[in-house]
Amino acid sequence: MIYNKVALIGLGLIASSIFWSAKRGGLVGQVSGYARSAATRDTARRIGLCDVVCDTAADAVADADLVILCVPVGAMGAVAEEIRPFLKPGAVISDVGSVKKAVIEAVQPHIPEGAHFIPAHPLAGTEHSGPESGFAELFDNRWCLLVPVEGSDPAKVAELRAFWEALGANVEEMDAEHHDLVLAVTSHTPHLIAYTMVGVADDLRRVTDSEVIKYSAAGFRDFTRIAASDPTMWRDVFMTNKEATLEILGRFTEELFALQRAIRTGDGDLLFDYFTRTRAIRRGIIDAGQDTDAPNFGRAAGRK
Amino acid sequence: MIYNKVALIGLGLIASSIFWSAKRGGLVGQVSGYARSAATRDTARRIGLCDVVCDTAADAVADADLVILCVPVGAMGAVAEEIRPFLKPGAVISDVGSVKKAVIEAVQPHIPEGAHFIPAHPLAGTEHSGPESGFAELFDNRWCLLVPVEGSDPAKVAELRAFWEALGANVEEMDAEHHDLVLAVTSHTPHLIAYTMVGVADDLRRVTDSEVIKYSAAGFRDFTRIAASDPTMWRDVFMTNKEATLEILGRFTEELFALQRAIRTGDGDLLFDYFTRTRAIRRGIIDAGQDTDAPNFGRAAGRK
Repeated sequence: MIYNKVALIGLGLIASSIFWSAKRGGLVGQVSGYARSAATRDTARRIGLCDVVCDTAADAVADADLVILCVPVGAMGAVAEEIRPFLKPGAVISDVGSVKKAVIEAVQPHIPEGAHFIPAHPLAGTEHSGPESGFAELFDNRWCLLVPVEGSDPAKVAELRAFWEALGANVEEMDAEHHDLVLAVTSHTPHLIAYTMVGVADDLRRVTDSEVIKYSAAGFRDFTRIAASDPTMWRDVFMTNKEATLEILGRFTEELFALQRAIRTGDGDLLFDYFTRTRAIRRGIIDAGQDTDAPNFGRAAGRK
Repeated sequence: MIYNKVALIGLGLIASSIFWSAKRGGLVGQVSGYARSAATRDTARRIGLCDVVCDTAADAVADADLVILCVPVGAMGAVAEEIRPFLKPGAVISDVGSVKKAVIEAVQPHIPEGAHFIPAHPLAGTEHSGPESGFAELFDNRWCLLVPVEGSDPAKVAELRAFWEALGANVEEMDAEHHDLVLAVTSHTPHLIAYTMVGVADDLRRVTDSEVIKYSAAGFRDFTRIAASDPTMWRDVFMTNKEATLEILGRFTEELFALQRAIRTGDGDLLFDYFTRTRAIRRGIIDAGQDTDAPNFGRAAGRK
């Protein structure tokens, strides 16, 4: 057993999946949980999420060897400040935020002498959120990125790595700046674009009634899944990974305008070459085991 | 049996799925097939795709009651011209193209007196293409849009509708202009945007090695599926549905710039409201039975 007691602060999709996965593997003696909302705490108690659900963050972190902050990025600093006086000496504090530079800036000043702050980011999620959306398999064969800060104790980093591997994840380490750029490409900009496309369609829906929904299987529906993600979480991501997101967005619009111009001028060769090049990257993702090769992601069509 | 003989011109994903679905339902006496490439014809013969595979389009359409053009949109006109002298009197000619105005302009002049041209578009596909990618369930509970032209015989339209319903599809009729606008929103623009995002990531991949692929589960991979679609088909779509695609792209960049500006100026409320609004449309798609509610589209994660 790597940790005797783990405290989960915030009880949404990620925290609940950590709990169920830790239970599956028998990884932790006790998991305590806390959520700011009384309704969330009630739901957690009802479904058996966490061994004990506490009414204060202070109670939850008492005696915990590992405290994982599972709140939106914009709330991390305040939570770290709140729990500071109640941390066990030598405790490890980690998080699951999608942005790392801003979280480190917000949390690091509140880490007491002797405690260890090791930021982390599991690259896993679904279109559902809240305490009831978690499941034990969420991290299986997904990546968890550890972002050790200046002076992180290598032995404590190794323990946290072993914990995430036991939850089912593959683990890599990288620095915060690089993390935020890689995620701007693989996650933040795609989400913003998906939200935008769905917003455009939503405007047009008023014109064309429900046709946008009815005929969504032609491509559009794949955008709606990621555009259904938690609004608070994503607002905070864009507020805190501003620089990298704006850089990738700049490149995106540059490319988009080149393709738009090719459409306008009838340059079919440019489009054909572009569409051929992008096909290869899909193959790479399948080969890397990060998606299914089954048609339509293996969705069942359901006969009439 | 609605048709004694159906001819499929072009033997890719859609044609092969029509064949397997027609076999499943025992809908047609004989299905003949033709593909321009000898390699495709050989593959079709090897896997039993079509009752008879012909070496010329002329042979394939002989005596056919229904001829379905299943070639890229840009090739429709030439194929229609080629088969014209060999059509059975009174035959129905249809197609499966993703664009309708341009197909009608290209094909209509080659329809002989007494034959019936009824354009169609099944809204179904996967990221795979070619004769081996088809399967009987592709059209189940998907939409097929019929786009009758001026003077289409209602009895012949009703027959074609019954045929598509027997293939598993739901059928609606609309006019060509409206079709092309609706598809620009639900399919063509989303595809162009996905291709663009994948292209941007592909450029950056050279900087960050394989990280874009490795960490793709964070959102990006959903874009790669539709950006793996057939390059010829999609080049033709954008070359022929120029006007509607450019209109929707214009709206898209307008919205994107508004969100980009909100990121730059730190307007979190605007982002939160936008992301909340787009969530509802996802619910509509699930309720309409056009996608699965299972996390990650029901993808299996696969344990280590």
